[in-house]
Amino acid sequence: MDRSTRIRRVSQVNEFDLIDTITSGLPVPDFVALGIGDDAAVVDLSGSQVVACTDMLIEGRHFRKAWSSAEDIGHRVAAANLADLVAMGAAPLALMVAMAIPVETETGWAADVIDGVQAEADLLGAAVIGGDTNSTDGPIVISATALGDMRGRNPIRRSGARPGDQVALVGRQGWAAAGLTVLSRGFRSPRVLVDALRRPNVPYEAGIAAAAAGATSMIDVSDGLLADLGHIADASGVGIDIESDALRVDEPLKDTAVAFTMDPLSWVLTGGEDHSLAATFPGDASLPESFYRIGRVIGDKVGVTVDGNEPRGARGWRHFGP
Amino acid sequence: MDRSTRIRRVSQVNEFDLIDTITSGLPVPDFVALGIGDDAAVVDLSGSQVVACTDMLIEGRHFRKAWSSAEDIGHRVAAANLADLVAMGAAPLALMVAMAIPVETETGWAADVIDGVQAEADLLGAAVIGGDTNSTDGPIVISATALGDMRGRNPIRRSGARPGDQVALVGRQGWAAAGLTVLSRGFRSPRVLVDALRRPNVPYEAGIAAAAAGATSMIDVSDGLLADLGHIADASGVGIDIESDALRVDEPLKDTAVAFTMDPLSWVLTGGEDHSLAATFPGDASLPESFYRIGRVIGDKVGVTVDGNEPRGARGWRHFGP
Repeated sequence: MDRSTRIRRVSQVNEFDLIDTITSGLPVPDFVALGIGDDAAVVDLSGSQVVACTDMLIEGRHFRKAWSSAEDIGHRVAAANLADLVAMGAAPLALMVAMAIPVETETGWAADVIDGVQAEADLLGAAVIGGDTNSTDGPIVISATALGDMRGRNPIRRSGARPGDQVALVGRQGWAAAGLTVLSRGFRSPRVLVDALRRPNVPYEAGIAAAAAGATSMIDVSDGLLADLGHIADASGVGIDIESDALRVDEPLKDTAVAFTMDPLSWVLTGGEDHSLAATFPGDASLPESFYRIGRVIGDKVGVTVDGNEPRGARGWRHFGP
Repeated sequence: MDRSTRIRRVSQVNEFDLIDTITSGLPVPDFVALGIGDDAAVVDLSGSQVVACTDMLIEGRHFRKAWSSAEDIGHRVAAANLADLVAMGAAPLALMVAMAIPVETETGWAADVIDGVQAEADLLGAAVIGGDTNSTDGPIVISATALGDMRGRNPIRRSGARPGDQVALVGRQGWAAAGLTVLSRGFRSPRVLVDALRRPNVPYEAGIAAAAAGATSMIDVSDGLLADLGHIADASGVGIDIESDALRVDEPLKDTAVAFTMDPLSWVLTGGEDHSLAATFPGDASLPESFYRIGRVIGDKVGVTVDGNEPRGARGWRHFGP
């Protein structure tokens, strides 16, 4: 373990440094088919492979009760996990939900969270199978773990992209970030953007189709398109060039960007939480329905470029440059 | 769903009412071999059964940094989950750990938690396979999920106790509660009790042996012996009578009880967090090594009695009575 990173405060490191610090040196027994570092882990059982991932939401960091209903929050924590499983090519089966709940909370609020989790799981035939509840003096914390079945298929990893592959995207991208901008500035509309932040509309079916169609890598966009494609680039040891003209800037983004004198492309490139799915496919493959091409995998320097240039700015993108 | 419980505050209901409120009406698809209500859930995969459980620890509620090191806390959250799997008769394989960490925390502290989790998992050959990290403005929250393999065996459920069965116990019982009493009164010793609170010494091997020996039901004692045997009694629809003379009151408990003028049996009967294992076995069965008989399953009223009498007191037991 790199001791030098261990004496830094959590506020001084990014999440990935923190994960490295935490996970360095852990053993990887033979039955761990795929360990830390992808959307989900894969464990060999006696006769099959279970895929597992976990995602935690914290009040004030990931949601506000003033902006989201309990059911919205349930949908979000479920979607974050289920999208991870689908991005592995796994069939989601089950969710476990642990909650820390302030004592003054109505129990119906917590029940509504679970109803939201189950409603999202219903989209895939999955079920809430367990969890844990605790009271807290702090903010609400909801931690969900999802389990899926590989059903004999190989996991679609972040590391499978190869030069010559097409890079493709499916689903809303930038909507949740735009919704956050809207709410943060005190507005409640456009409603479609605010709703997109509250409840992602994850393209599960397209993800399942991508797995069947031979995607070489896939990831759900939770940190931002540039950041998550960066994970694929790093894991695959390739470059990824996005063609900005190919990115779809949906009408609600355009309209709202005009109102706020912003560049809507920044939402598309850096917005997370929509759980759109980005995948790579062989250069000659037909893309599965709903996916559209946004760029290509190149053999040059590892990393992500936009129209051949390195993205700039604090969150990996700045419109006005160089 | 029972709406009347939904408008009560979390502070007004017990955990089991809260769970009922939260889980009522959830679907149970065919692949859920065992859903909510036992130590862990069981999911049928293509060719095997995965067992999953989750347990959350909250700073100030379940641990204090002044009393426990990060590694201690890692051991505890792992033990709480691994004991649940072993109590099902499952072979533990993997752990996922999600953490909410205050920004001023040193990253090494979080890494030490994971080291503690892995060190506990090493006792069973299990591995940390994933997780999630987030910063928080509130208390530390650590949520772990454990996965195990049934390996073709049937889960040992809470509902399998039958009249005539022997009730047996293995492992330290009451030590953690005594350790908490010691620390709460400002003492740091006896060290063995304080250490027992910090790191449970779970009788994993005995639990695995109990599964092989045909235990009819099994539970890890996390809420207290009376409370957890109550879960078996309720689930099995039986009465359980504990013989107080048969309960072992270990020397450190006796000595400390004298010093504090307390009844050590109250720690044994109501103390949780030791993750001792309570199980029932057919009346004519030889008990597996280390287990000792503490009572019997009776066909009378559902519930737990001590020497034929109903336990009394706020936490289910009061020495001076009736």
